[in-house]
Amino acid sequence: MPARPLDDLGDPGVVILGAPFDWGASYRPGARFGPKAIRDAGYLGFDGYRPHLPTGIDALGVLGVVDAGDLNLPVGYIEQSLDHIADAVEGVCRHGSIPIVLGGDHAITFPNARAVAAVHGDIALVHFDAHADTGDQSASGMPLSHGTPMRRLIESGAVAGHRFVQIGLRGYWPGPETVTWMQEQGMRSYLMRDIGERGLRAVVDEAVDYATDGADAVFLSVDIDVVDPSMAPGTGTPEPGGLTSRELLDTLRRLARELNIVGADVVEVAPAYDGPGETTALLANRVVLDILNGMAERRLGVAGDNLP
Amino acid sequence: MPARPLDDLGDPGVVILGAPFDWGASYRPGARFGPKAIRDAGYLGFDGYRPHLPTGIDALGVLGVVDAGDLNLPVGYIEQSLDHIADAVEGVCRHGSIPIVLGGDHAITFPNARAVAAVHGDIALVHFDAHADTGDQSASGMPLSHGTPMRRLIESGAVAGHRFVQIGLRGYWPGPETVTWMQEQGMRSYLMRDIGERGLRAVVDEAVDYATDGADAVFLSVDIDVVDPSMAPGTGTPEPGGLTSRELLDTLRRLARELNIVGADVVEVAPAYDGPGETTALLANRVVLDILNGMAERRLGVAGDNLP
Amino acid sequence: MPARPLDDLGDPGVVILGAPFDWGASYRPGARFGPKAIRDAGYLGFDGYRPHLPTGIDALGVLGVVDAGDLNLPVGYIEQSLDHIADAVEGVCRHGSIPIVLGGDHAITFPNARAVAAVHGDIALVHFDAHADTGDQSASGMPLSHGTPMRRLIESGAVAGHRFVQIGLRGYWPGPETVTWMQEQGMRSYLMRDIGERGLRAVVDEAVDYATDGADAVFLSVDIDVVDPSMAPGTGTPEPGGLTSRELLDTLRRLARELNIVGADVVEVAPAYDGPGETTALLANRVVLDILNGMAERRLGVAGDNLP
Amino acid sequence: MPARPLDDLGDPGVVILGAPFDWGASYRPGARFGPKAIRDAGYLGFDGYRPHLPTGIDALGVLGVVDAGDLNLPVGYIEQSLDHIADAVEGVCRHGSIPIVLGGDHAITFPNARAVAAVHGDIALVHFDAHADTGDQSASGMPLSHGTPMRRLIESGAVAGHRFVQIGLRGYWPGPETVTWMQEQGMRSYLMRDIGERGLRAVVDEAVDYATDGADAVFLSVDIDVVDPSMAPGTGTPEPGGLTSRELLDTLRRLARELNIVGADVVEVAPAYDGPGETTALLANRVVLDILNGMAERRLGVAGDNLP
Amino acid sequence: MPARPLDDLGDPGVVILGAPFDWGASYRPGARFGPKAIRDAGYLGFDGYRPHLPTGIDALGVLGVVDAGDLNLPVGYIEQSLDHIADAVEGVCRHGSIPIVLGGDHAITFPNARAVAAVHGDIALVHFDAHADTGDQSASGMPLSHGTPMRRLIESGAVAGHRFVQIGLRGYWPGPETVTWMQEQGMRSYLMRDIGERGLRAVVDEAVDYATDGADAVFLSVDIDVVDPSMAPGTGTPEPGGLTSRELLDTLRRLARELNIVGADVVEVAPAYDGPGETTALLANRVVLDILNGMAERRLGVAGDNLP
Amino acid sequence: MPARPLDDLGDPGVVILGAPFDWGASYRPGARFGPKAIRDAGYLGFDGYRPHLPTGIDALGVLGVVDAGDLNLPVGYIEQSLDHIADAVEGVCRHGSIPIVLGGDHAITFPNARAVAAVHGDIALVHFDAHADTGDQSASGMPLSHGTPMRRLIESGAVAGHRFVQIGLRGYWPGPETVTWMQEQGMRSYLMRDIGERGLRAVVDEAVDYATDGADAVFLSVDIDVVDPSMAPGTGTPEPGGLTSRELLDTLRRLARELNIVGADVVEVAPAYDGPGETTALLANRVVLDILNGMAERRLGVAGDNLP
Repeated sequence: MPARPLDDLGDPGVVILGAPFDWGASYRPGARFGPKAIRDAGYLGFDGYRPHLPTGIDALGVLGVVDAGDLNLPVGYIEQSLDHIADAVEGVCRHGSIPIVLGGDHAITFPNARAVAAVHGDIALVHFDAHADTGDQSASGMPLSHGTPMRRLIESGAVAGHRFVQIGLRGYWPGPETVTWMQEQGMRSYLMRDIGERGLRAVVDEAVDYATDGADAVFLSVDIDVVDPSMAPGTGTPEPGGLTSRELLDTLRRLARELNIVGADVVEVAPAYDGPGETTALLANRVVLDILNGMAERRLGVAGDNLP
Repeated sequence: MPARPLDDLGDPGVVILGAPFDWGASYRPGARFGPKAIRDAGYLGFDGYRPHLPTGIDALGVLGVVDAGDLNLPVGYIEQSLDHIADAVEGVCRHGSIPIVLGGDHAITFPNARAVAAVHGDIALVHFDAHADTGDQSASGMPLSHGTPMRRLIESGAVAGHRFVQIGLRGYWPGPETVTWMQEQGMRSYLMRDIGERGLRAVVDEAVDYATDGADAVFLSVDIDVVDPSMAPGTGTPEPGGLTSRELLDTLRRLARELNIVGADVVEVAPAYDGPGETTALLANRVVLDILNGMAERRLGVAGDNLP
Repeated sequence: MPARPLDDLGDPGVVILGAPFDWGASYRPGARFGPKAIRDAGYLGFDGYRPHLPTGIDALGVLGVVDAGDLNLPVGYIEQSLDHIADAVEGVCRHGSIPIVLGGDHAITFPNARAVAAVHGDIALVHFDAHADTGDQSASGMPLSHGTPMRRLIESGAVAGHRFVQIGLRGYWPGPETVTWMQEQGMRSYLMRDIGERGLRAVVDEAVDYATDGADAVFLSVDIDVVDPSMAPGTGTPEPGGLTSRELLDTLRRLARELNIVGADVVEVAPAYDGPGETTALLANRVVLDILNGMAERRLGVAGDNLP
Repeated sequence: MPARPLDDLGDPGVVILGAPFDWGASYRPGARFGPKAIRDAGYLGFDGYRPHLPTGIDALGVLGVVDAGDLNLPVGYIEQSLDHIADAVEGVCRHGSIPIVLGGDHAITFPNARAVAAVHGDIALVHFDAHADTGDQSASGMPLSHGTPMRRLIESGAVAGHRFVQIGLRGYWPGPETVTWMQEQGMRSYLMRDIGERGLRAVVDEAVDYATDGADAVFLSVDIDVVDPSMAPGTGTPEPGGLTSRELLDTLRRLARELNIVGADVVEVAPAYDGPGETTALLANRVVLDILNGMAERRLGVAGDNLP
Repeated sequence: MPARPLDDLGDPGVVILGAPFDWGASYRPGARFGPKAIRDAGYLGFDGYRPHLPTGIDALGVLGVVDAGDLNLPVGYIEQSLDHIADAVEGVCRHGSIPIVLGGDHAITFPNARAVAAVHGDIALVHFDAHADTGDQSASGMPLSHGTPMRRLIESGAVAGHRFVQIGLRGYWPGPETVTWMQEQGMRSYLMRDIGERGLRAVVDEAVDYATDGADAVFLSVDIDVVDPSMAPGTGTPEPGGLTSRELLDTLRRLARELNIVGADVVEVAPAYDGPGETTALLANRVVLDILNGMAERRLGVAGDNLP
Repeated sequence: MPARPLDDLGDPGVVILGAPFDWGASYRPGARFGPKAIRDAGYLGFDGYRPHLPTGIDALGVLGVVDAGDLNLPVGYIEQSLDHIADAVEGVCRHGSIPIVLGGDHAITFPNARAVAAVHGDIALVHFDAHADTGDQSASGMPLSHGTPMRRLIESGAVAGHRFVQIGLRGYWPGPETVTWMQEQGMRSYLMRDIGERGLRAVVDEAVDYATDGADAVFLSVDIDVVDPSMAPGTGTPEPGGLTSRELLDTLRRLARELNIVGADVVEVAPAYDGPGETTALLANRVVLDILNGMAERRLGVAGDNLP
């Protein structure tokens, strides 16, 4: 689905943009097909109508959501690709719309959040992920990769370190040196262990309070691998021991209702590893819908439900 | 496995019947292979002996369970197919046995429950599902479909609206108009949000109290998609955010122990989407065994365990 | 990866040994490819460095972990194969190292634990599994099989019955006669029902107290099918209703920190049933790493976290 | 991709129409996703330009090919569905365009060819298939099915029996009674055995001579299962021993160059059975392109190459 | 499908027997599910009627074919398993029926052909395979394996070396020493290279002349891996560069018509590697049907067609 | 398998080098796992011994073949990656060995052949492929891609246009403008149509004569997609209508025997699309072995067989 010019889109509240990019992926590629898979997933009609069963809200109508299609990105040229993404996302923001970018690997959050910050200023970044993505460089020594975007965002000054919260980290990466750097920047990282000990709701509450203290606008970055690999196998660098899909969906809808989301991305859906049921793509589709629904609830002033 | 005549089956307490039917499925077909997959699933022997580890009960022996094979249904002729199913299920009931129908898509609950009600009178219907299945018509405007059986049951007078409880609903369908109709009929629908806020046990207790108030006999309809797609990918219209398989199994066994089940169906297992591990078919196999075990516990007067 | 002679390995604290064996599997074979799949799984580098994010510990370095490769086992000759495994494992123990054996089907726990007991004496066996594995004989009447190792261990006197604890059992096997035998031996078996009613932490605490009362050394046997089939589909005899992967990982790391592990095995990973995401193999990889990390925490005297 | 009104399509030479229909399939359903899979298959651009390497022709431009999208068909209502298809196809013909229908199972050839004949009169039907599709009724005794369209066409008078040629038949169906009926109608059926003994080119030449003797207009019906299942696994009723994909592609392009094609369909692509490489859908995509290229070669008067 | 006693089978001409055995497989196991997969494959009815399209013959009726089900074999005990198979096959022969054994891995040809020879005396063995299966011992030094049956047959005196012909050999095994031994025994081995240079028909003609010179009775052993892995991926030790499925089917039917087949086996179908289309199992199903059809043609005196 | 320094390899005749690179792939990525998949494919032992059945030659021993492992390439940085490959390949040549590079996507032939030409001078390039790979730029306008290496080689002067022969081209790319450019350079491109009309052997003979007229040294580039997608589904840009695997293997062994191969690559194996049978990786493994065997036959002066 090739991208359409913004001028053809009218005046939407939210613009969906596909970034078919995976040459930042250190291990399994394939997230370039994430945008297509997320759009195609599931059994709902082609009617542009998505009434949310618990609330009755149709976020597509309430917010004015338009799908602008996919960017044409130069395969294998990471710098040019990320710059192109940044330009497109900044264009959406300047158009007065909220960009939701369908990745693509996580390297795209560097341009995504940078572009949003260029328009909205001091933003907080709420980051769901199994991985910190704060590497100094890739395994082959390069600055751009899906393992480095958060460091690049902080180093570039686009997002302040103390505006970062990370939820869901686990596993065997990165090493202590990087963890020390993260703490020095004021990043707050909540591990699955923290969620196991304290509960998801308490962790998310604290995380959000920290990141948004003094900042109004929030960029929400959702790496689908924050969910356990058994529930999201279609991804590039799966790490066992993650959130359940219900936990993620409920949390995202709540955050989108409670926070002022000015941009978001949903990344690392790699359909080739998803199995015939295509459940990861479907989950990512609902991640987008639930974020949109939360935003619509906020717009309509709907009171919150009592979920994590 | 072609169907055998009832007269050849002796006098069983429970008759398993396969309904290889999927021409009511709006999206992914394939549930016609559900009966075969459910029967073939798993590693247990061909010995007709299933001792339940927690209770030591062999429900097959206690209840007298016989597998009557699969009905021969006319592909693509939905009215004739559903009528044929209704005749067969009613025959089982009149034979004095409890039918458990292996679907097939959910359209078959219209004939299944209608036939059971024709014999047993005022029955309650306990319905596990991600979807309400109360559409007025299919997406192409037809009355019969796997999206409409509950409306057809109520409209036909087979089951009263206030005898319906639904557990596990979620997602983006149906719209408010249908939800209003459901409430007008007295249906009780428990969403995953309700389960998240109040806990599964409390929700199920209330649901069952409501549906069985004054009614003794219960039809149990289990759409495997009530379970999260990651745990039941082999289905036609998966909706993220569902029950875990443990939650479903424990709840069904409890209900079968506590209620007077006079008929049941397990539907929407579509093996083509199940992955090489065939876990959805295996889960459905255990859904049947756990329902049978609960029924046997009831027959034997075994006290309940303390699960949801 | 063919096995290397122990003399070439230096003086490691832990020796990883592959047992590509599946001719004890009653149903789906394929666990012979378990060792390869577990080693290959995941995105981490070839650098022999695994810094654990929550603790910062690199267990490979702390413990001195060496991978000795795979044993060359005679396909189809179960007695000779198990004897060969016993010899190799005993060699590792006598070398002063802790063996961690990558299965292979669960029949290998008979030689694994027997060999460890031959060196370490009175050991407890903590056993995570969906199945009791205490059959008197296989379905075709033979003594060696993946359904009989625990009975063979007890009968041979290698491990005393009251030193056995089993966690995660469920389903429809074995029958009451075998359950009675298990109780007579003093085995303690904790079912998923017990975990559902009492919570995982309480069950594990009690189990460990029982098994280790008076015994210092522990053999840890992890059948990956203790995890629910949806989260570990790549296995031979999946049984619905199991632990989550998070529950298993957190519990194993805790046990490895709290107990004196002198040997372990991780068995029943059958990659052919794992789907394109290869999540079962990845989970088993993290099972090994989390056990190692717990052992390293114990060595370093790290205080426990507050997880199940 | 929902269907667009013909009036919005301008004046195309060829109209592609999707028939997402599979409730005529006797065995594996899933051909309803054939149109989507055929459109999505392969790596070529979204530029509407398909220069054929051997001839340099861009058939899309030469012929004026427009994709009208998919019909909205009532699942499970076979009569209504086929009537709706017939109306749509007849509309395309009366619009002055050539319909190429993407199936869908083979039941759709009854409406497809009937509609074309209603406009073009005495047409020949050249039919590539593993199966004769001349059953008197389906296995459950119904007249409409993917096993009966050719009989329905002849019985209805839409296409005369002696205007039928079938190429590629094999296997164990139908029985002698049906074969006798076919011969009585004047149908010519070429088995794979004939191709093996006489060569593909000779058989096709004779077949075409027979069918088109006195008839100018030809309907071309390509069941993808004419190709060997190993080369086209993504289909509903595969039968070993078929054509190679090269044989099919070369033959179809030649026929489209030599004959006056007034309508065509490509049926029985069932993506759920196609494997991760999606080769069957890709082959069907090239079947369409090669037919179009042959038609363009005919239009441009290009001399034939020397292939089967 | 558990085996039935021969006495219950009446007086069949041919008895199908399943040997769910794969603990002779050196690499990918899984052929124990071959019998089930071969029986389940394909779309034909449960009517016991298989009219062959080219000849109109129903071999099941002509020959009297009965399926006796699967043997219960002791997993992991190769000697006992093969002896049990030999007993069963010899029983079928002594019953006056022709055994067709569904494997299982190729180790079973040692008992299969040995048992047939015990009853029929001096038999020829026509062997389709990618591999010679004449190893002196397995990779781990054992005598029984799927790589050694032909040597065991010759060494045991059951089948004379000069009665062996092998068709389809290729690849990188065995080495020259074994090839020399084969030649010394008088075995004739036709490589794919021979087929490429001389054509399949010429090679088969010569092979058969050689093996049957002076011997009337023939055992036919078909390893499905004689077919190219792309056309038969569901097998344990695939070797690129093989026959096409058409070549195999046509040749087998011809041989079964021209030779006096007194026993046969079809081996090495391992469904776990077959992909969602299940084409290998389907091919093996047709291998059995085409052999049966050839045998029926011979019985009826049908003249040959003109295929390879 | 990380790369080893050349100095550790001794004095091999042939060096295998893995290039885990796929950020030149325009469509499906995943060829970065090609080297691992090709090495892991198949059932042969870890003994470094590959006796070729038709000739008895063990090419690994005759030639002295060493596997140097995989290069560490910077993901997403195409220029740096290709330069790094060129350096490594040139190093192998200057070491006096023949490089065989396992791709990776086809972009690597630009550095591979450039490096070989830098050492060996005027080389011919024999290129098996479905695609010409002579694009002026990628779809997003960049010079480096798997669609442009042959143009870059000619433009850079590394290989003269008239030294290029291409075998197996087909499909719908590139357009006439590019075809004209190719002809102007003196490239000879043989389409599948040519092979269909004239036969493979004649085409290959003519191709080789043309390319090697006056040039002694040959670089052989094998894109696995020259084979039909049904036989090589595990690739990035499959194009129906290709060679069979037998045709490719036989031709390559012949060419390696008849020509002076000074370098080769085998590219575009993308395992994620290969299905559970992993037949594409296995085919590529045999492509390498058959090339090596042909080279060994040449070294030993073995007379040719009579294949294509």
